[in-house]
Amino acid sequence: MSVISITDVLAGKFPVNEEITVHGWIRTRRDSKAGISFLAIHDGSCFDAIQAVVPNDLNNYDEEVLKLTTGCSVKVTGTLVESQGQGQAFEIQATGVEVLGYVEDPDTYPMAAKRHSIEFLREQAHLRARTNLGGAVTRVRNTLAQAIHRFFHEKGYFWIATPLITASDCEGAGEMFRVSTLDMENLPRTDKGEVDYSEDFFGKEAFLTVSGQLNVETYCSALSKVYTFGPTFRAENSNTSRHLAEFWMVEPEIAFADLSDAADLAEDMLKYVLKALLEERADDMAFFQQRVDKTVIDRLKALISTDFVRMDYTDAIEILENCDKKFENPVSWGIDLNSEHERYLAEEHVGAPIILQNYPKDIKAFYMRLNEDGKTVAAMDILAPGIGEIIGGAQREERLDVLDARLSEMDLDPADYSWYRDLRRYGTVPHAGFGLGFERLIAYATGIANVRDVIPFPRTPNNAAF
Amino acid sequence: MSVISITDVLAGKFPVNEEITVHGWIRTRRDSKAGISFLAIHDGSCFDAIQAVVPNDLNNYDEEVLKLTTGCSVKVTGTLVESQGQGQAFEIQATGVEVLGYVEDPDTYPMAAKRHSIEFLREQAHLRARTNLGGAVTRVRNTLAQAIHRFFHEKGYFWIATPLITASDCEGAGEMFRVSTLDMENLPRTDKGEVDYSEDFFGKEAFLTVSGQLNVETYCSALSKVYTFGPTFRAENSNTSRHLAEFWMVEPEIAFADLSDAADLAEDMLKYVLKALLEERADDMAFFQQRVDKTVIDRLKALISTDFVRMDYTDAIEILENCDKKFENPVSWGIDLNSEHERYLAEEHVGAPIILQNYPKDIKAFYMRLNEDGKTVAAMDILAPGIGEIIGGAQREERLDVLDARLSEMDLDPADYSWYRDLRRYGTVPHAGFGLGFERLIAYATGIANVRDVIPFPRTPNNAAF
Repeated sequence: MSVISITDVLAGKFPVNEEITVHGWIRTRRDSKAGISFLAIHDGSCFDAIQAVVPNDLNNYDEEVLKLTTGCSVKVTGTLVESQGQGQAFEIQATGVEVLGYVEDPDTYPMAAKRHSIEFLREQAHLRARTNLGGAVTRVRNTLAQAIHRFFHEKGYFWIATPLITASDCEGAGEMFRVSTLDMENLPRTDKGEVDYSEDFFGKEAFLTVSGQLNVETYCSALSKVYTFGPTFRAENSNTSRHLAEFWMVEPEIAFADLSDAADLAEDMLKYVLKALLEERADDMAFFQQRVDKTVIDRLKALISTDFVRMDYTDAIEILENCDKKFENPVSWGIDLNSEHERYLAEEHVGAPIILQNYPKDIKAFYMRLNEDGKTVAAMDILAPGIGEIIGGAQREERLDVLDARLSEMDLDPADYSWYRDLRRYGTVPHAGFGLGFERLIAYATGIANVRDVIPFPRTPNNAAF
Repeated sequence: MSVISITDVLAGKFPVNEEITVHGWIRTRRDSKAGISFLAIHDGSCFDAIQAVVPNDLNNYDEEVLKLTTGCSVKVTGTLVESQGQGQAFEIQATGVEVLGYVEDPDTYPMAAKRHSIEFLREQAHLRARTNLGGAVTRVRNTLAQAIHRFFHEKGYFWIATPLITASDCEGAGEMFRVSTLDMENLPRTDKGEVDYSEDFFGKEAFLTVSGQLNVETYCSALSKVYTFGPTFRAENSNTSRHLAEFWMVEPEIAFADLSDAADLAEDMLKYVLKALLEERADDMAFFQQRVDKTVIDRLKALISTDFVRMDYTDAIEILENCDKKFENPVSWGIDLNSEHERYLAEEHVGAPIILQNYPKDIKAFYMRLNEDGKTVAAMDILAPGIGEIIGGAQREERLDVLDARLSEMDLDPADYSWYRDLRRYGTVPHAGFGLGFERLIAYATGIANVRDVIPFPRTPNNAAF
């Protein structure tokens, strides 16, 4: 077979008045009194279905065509013609309809042609890509992923596959899942009666990574411009619309760079990928605009055309302290900002994305570079109107003595960081990077409220279905 | 800072006789009797280093420049000039050398400028990207990954992130790692005294996936052309040069397609990505040719320009039975072919890549489509000269009754496959796909013998270091 995609047919890539064959699933069937059926055929290659006009003189019209329901799979042959009616520019005057697969018991088919709640679709994760919403999310997700790879590739960054299974004790960015092949009903024990991980697959305790950053720094210290784009795990019992136990993260790391370079890169990347989205998936974005978030396209256009505002944490605290707004969480220098603060700054005070930088060292990780003031570190968060924090990054501490002092201050054992310290012992360089939660980007780009609806099979507390 | 890449300098993208600044690490320093030092400066952006010619009248010449050793990081400013000597076309007449980081105790620096065994480098995985070999592997890996995404994107395939954590009982393609947050020293128990997984993070037993195929079939049944490219796990205690506990896999899945379509796609994909590699990474490939495998470039060129030969398993058995070659493992219809058989077929009998197809059903998975003969399934393996099997694929069983009969034959419970069966109940379509182990592709493309040397931080039995 050599199957053509409906997106190419609708884009006018095939000659009219010639024969064409398409494959897909029935979205709807409508029968006219004149004895003609209209089939909307969808193959997922774009938002729209193509219409096939089926005359009742086909020899399987009564026995098969009239039994077609939403979700049935078909192969339709006919003449491609310009459409007379509204909607698409082209349609097919069918001369043959071959049924590939019926829907067993159409009355109970979960994806029947009606609106489904987003929660119901989540429970039908194996079928939800068949809906308008599920298809549009998938195409947008793909477009953003491709644009991310393209952006970094064009700029000379190398994609690095950092490991997911880790036995390092040095991440500490969140609760971790254990990875093991020990027989749980019959655990090996040491002399002291503790679980004997020397018998485990990796010869020691192993976990799923919470970030590729520390690992990718090793490659940054050799190839200068690198990024990860891979899965990441958090075993936090967070049942929120912004958390997943398994999610994808983008983490670029740049050598010979400071915080400002990382901020520039983040701003460029966001603009590049969202611009690609608006250009390449206008069909799906129109759907999100209509059905999910009336402001989504304007919001993305504004972000693309606006210079991000850079603001120091200390200045932000002053703004928050002196504004008229009453916050639930009190503001003072040293606090970690809450969503209400971030949104006030981005949405009300500035009205543009903010790169908030130079946070108090006590609320940030050990590897962030200490500033001259001795109180703050070269960290940044990017806050976008409508969502709050979307990117977090930092310049890394490249000075071995300062890093060691920070480790000691935080009661961390330098021995656990020996390979990370090596990067500072051998030709250390200033470097910086950031992390972008891919699902949060998709949620932001589509207006979808819950990250569970922008990943094919979400993993959350008490749920690893499918 | 706005850092330029040495690859762009060597490619002639900057004007000669003007000032330029590069950043990188010292590969070597050579001092002439005339009081000039030659620094080879490398930033990982390409295989080659750029030479900086440093006169002894720089004010930090004695104190700093003469202390530079392999691995030190520097910022060098000077005039870009056409090179008089052999090697690169351009070099820098330095007017300033700023040392960013020295190497602590150069005598013990693990990556000193000499040849290291590949096994030694594996133990220094956090530093090995600094070597010629490590850098070349990383750039090749990136080029192949980018080409894979580009190939599928250009052909209208959507990238799908199938889940890594799975609670499905239906994979059965290999031994799995358990994923858990239970307190191992204090496991919760049911009334019967068994471990109580209802208390675990996902409310039931969960594992790391061995393949995204079953999950991606759900998206194929909605969007027609999809692929995965993500990590996969096998908890097999295999200490071989071809096995990793954590590796990356590419798994396209095409709707309205049969085995032949999947074979075409696999052939097209391999040729596309290897052609991109030869074109985009000529520098690194020349290195592999010189140092690792004298035949590698010819081998890739041959693969790109040769039509793959399609052969039925049954015919292959006949060839093997009737050839003069003595095999260690006896040949008869029904056996799973060994590497010696595969290599004989590809290297000696045909002398070209072979797509071997229609295997006995008893040695293949339940989901592969039963052929008319009732004995074989529409499965394929692609065997390449020089490596053997590189891709495995199949047309999937889309007929519910046949699938159910196969499940029953193999003593598998249909209830465990309810969502997979739904795809056959609701608008089933013929579909097919394949899996490519990404590290095996890189090994094949570089001539590197062990997959542990083509992934940044390999995970194998008793090793999850870094």
